[in-house]
Amino acid sequence: MYKNCKVIAFDADDTLWVNETYFRDAEKEFSKILSKYETINKIDQELFKIEIKNLELYGYGIKGFMLSMIECALKLSNYKISQYELDKILILGKKMLNKPVELLDGVEEVLEKLHKKYKLIVATKGDLLDQERKLEKSGLLKYFHHIEVMSEKKEEDYKKLIKHLDINPNQLLMIGNSLKSDVLPLLKIGASAIHVPFHITWSYEKVSANETKNSDFHSLNHIKDVLKLL
Amino acid sequence: MYKNCKVIAFDADDTLWVNETYFRDAEKEFSKILSKYETINKIDQELFKIEIKNLELYGYGIKGFMLSMIECALKLSNYKISQYELDKILILGKKMLNKPVELLDGVEEVLEKLHKKYKLIVATKGDLLDQERKLEKSGLLKYFHHIEVMSEKKEEDYKKLIKHLDINPNQLLMIGNSLKSDVLPLLKIGASAIHVPFHITWSYEKVSANETKNSDFHSLNHIKDVLKLL
Repeated sequence: MYKNCKVIAFDADDTLWVNETYFRDAEKEFSKILSKYETINKIDQELFKIEIKNLELYGYGIKGFMLSMIECALKLSNYKISQYELDKILILGKKMLNKPVELLDGVEEVLEKLHKKYKLIVATKGDLLDQERKLEKSGLLKYFHHIEVMSEKKEEDYKKLIKHLDINPNQLLMIGNSLKSDVLPLLKIGASAIHVPFHITWSYEKVSANETKNSDFHSLNHIKDVLKLL
Repeated sequence: MYKNCKVIAFDADDTLWVNETYFRDAEKEFSKILSKYETINKIDQELFKIEIKNLELYGYGIKGFMLSMIECALKLSNYKISQYELDKILILGKKMLNKPVELLDGVEEVLEKLHKKYKLIVATKGDLLDQERKLEKSGLLKYFHHIEVMSEKKEEDYKKLIKHLDINPNQLLMIGNSLKSDVLPLLKIGASAIHVPFHITWSYEKVSANETKNSDFHSLNHIKDVLKLL
């Protein structure tokens, strides 16, 4: 199934290292700051709505998330949120950007083995500088040819990536935790993909069972199982 | 001088299209919003200081600039700036992200001619999504092999780029408006560079005459003059 594979692209957040957990924690802190103005549920919903509305303009990543939190705070408090509370939101975002990198179990072993046989790259969404910094902090830089920070992970973005890599679609294998971003678009353009789920998924990345029906890909419990397939 | 050249990398902002002008305009609007709290000079200085302090964390681009404006507004107003004024800053930043792209004179003619002989890429700092969007809007996408959005433009960043392009340093020519980012680091690693100045330069990108002494590069009045050299 993977015999033509030349380049393996790894998703980063929640595939190589923990990420979504930090966003969930930040959302909890944000709800606390806003709790005198709205219910937790309403705050969660409104923040999500504003994030999605701004996605086209801001793209993925922590800076856009910070700006959306500020917008949400102004709106939900009916412009009553205090300047000090807004400052807390800035500090919350900066703390996220300064978080240490927590590698997922088995990642280094897999990269260590695969980088001898394949060209490995990182293919991730998010803030450019933030992702580069995390890769640097992770100590995994040495296994990768380079990092591709992508503004989106749709079919046409992967087509661009393949053109940029000067390979054919069937020579690319993507490994990641998101069915929507790391698996389905790859299969549609004739590349391969392996799904390694993370225990939490951002609502925006969720797909219905229907969308994966008739799709031909491996879903693994643990990233180490990749070594049994390659 | 350019006989080994295989890849030509173009800087984007203020080389292919207008950019710095929009930041200057935004700074003026920002000063107006804050004018009841401080003098224009003090506002300008403080914003610059906060931008530079945050550069390591936020990187280049409009989203980081928006967050720095908010931080600066809170600080300079001694946390008195109104919630509506903060909202104005968000709107100001969003307006920047939505600006149309204004190509600089001669750019398309140069790209049209050069892309038949060389592999052309865009090598730019800034927000990933924003730069991709501008390239899309510019109508110049067809001339470029791909776009490299870089978190920094120092020697080691260009070394990574060269490795990524699988070429030797002397096969890369960079064309851009910033001596600091588009010229000097290239010359130091054995690549070539052509300087095409823009009429305004962000203070952070300025270099002293001393730094360019004994450097061997062409500085052109107009990007069209590149065609006489290549």
